[in-house]
Amino acid sequence: MSRKPSSRPQHRRPAQRGESTGAQVPGVEYGLLEDLMGYALRRAQIRIYQDFLDTMESWSITPPRFSAMIIIDNNAGMKLTELAAAMGIARSGAVEVVNSLEKLGFVSRTDSEVDKRAHVLALTSVGKKALTGIAQAIQAHDARISARLTTAEQTELRRLLGLLG
Amino acid sequence: MSRKPSSRPQHRRPAQRGESTGAQVPGVEYGLLEDLMGYALRRAQIRIYQDFLDTMESWSITPPRFSAMIIIDNNAGMKLTELAAAMGIARSGAVEVVNSLEKLGFVSRTDSEVDKRAHVLALTSVGKKALTGIAQAIQAHDARISARLTTAEQTELRRLLGLLG
Repeated sequence: MSRKPSSRPQHRRPAQRGESTGAQVPGVEYGLLEDLMGYALRRAQIRIYQDFLDTMESWSITPPRFSAMIIIDNNAGMKLTELAAAMGIARSGAVEVVNSLEKLGFVSRTDSEVDKRAHVLALTSVGKKALTGIAQAIQAHDARISARLTTAEQTELRRLLGLLG
Repeated sequence: MSRKPSSRPQHRRPAQRGESTGAQVPGVEYGLLEDLMGYALRRAQIRIYQDFLDTMESWSITPPRFSAMIIIDNNAGMKLTELAAAMGIARSGAVEVVNSLEKLGFVSRTDSEVDKRAHVLALTSVGKKALTGIAQAIQAHDARISARLTTAEQTELRRLLGLLG
């Protein structure tokens, strides 16, 4: 069940398809929302999310599923609770993500040799192969969403995001 | 069914409760994720979201519900499709948000005088009263999440976020 990347052109942006762009709509009063940092972040995320979903359409990959695959791939012998902590989400959320990745055939749970009650997570060979294509597409997506910022601005944006919250 | 603001101290942060902070976990390899702007944004959002939910716990208000209330309050006679466009979400998402706000008694739909098939959205008097308290709590939340940035950095962060996507 290997999946092919979408044949859609990678540069097609939500605005060009007449869909929501996450931009403010002219003529609408946003009141207090305009003043909120949290809302500025949310609008940026809405814009980016649409492009992410388009990019991952043919793989059925959402942002949490992608994060989980990368983290599982980079950390051998990881347990579910550890994955949840690494992702910064609730255990129940991690269960859901791992279940969906198992259904896609990308992730397997095997008995831990250390703790018989726990399972360790690993990518399947199908998952590993898929991740190569997925990671490439995500890197292209990330370059696209950052394209209007200079390298210095990108560095500064990361620094400022790190100070938030 | 007016709701009182939470009595929890407003300055209590996720980190102090030993919950996920959205920070990277030491000892975990994040691989490619470290390089992605989209992931930096996502981590910031995870950190902020937890504080938002804590702030809004007693009101059952999520970020989209809050945005919807503010936009409905600021734009008289708005229809559902217009709300969806203003929020940058799908119509189905707006239906869900409005249904939940109706259940909370905060929003009502009334027949449009112009188009008999359409309903216009409005805050109820309960909704208006609740929004005063909600907006205050959200402003305190927003100040909290931005507290480590200077005013100049906050302005720059907004500008850079506006360039993303």
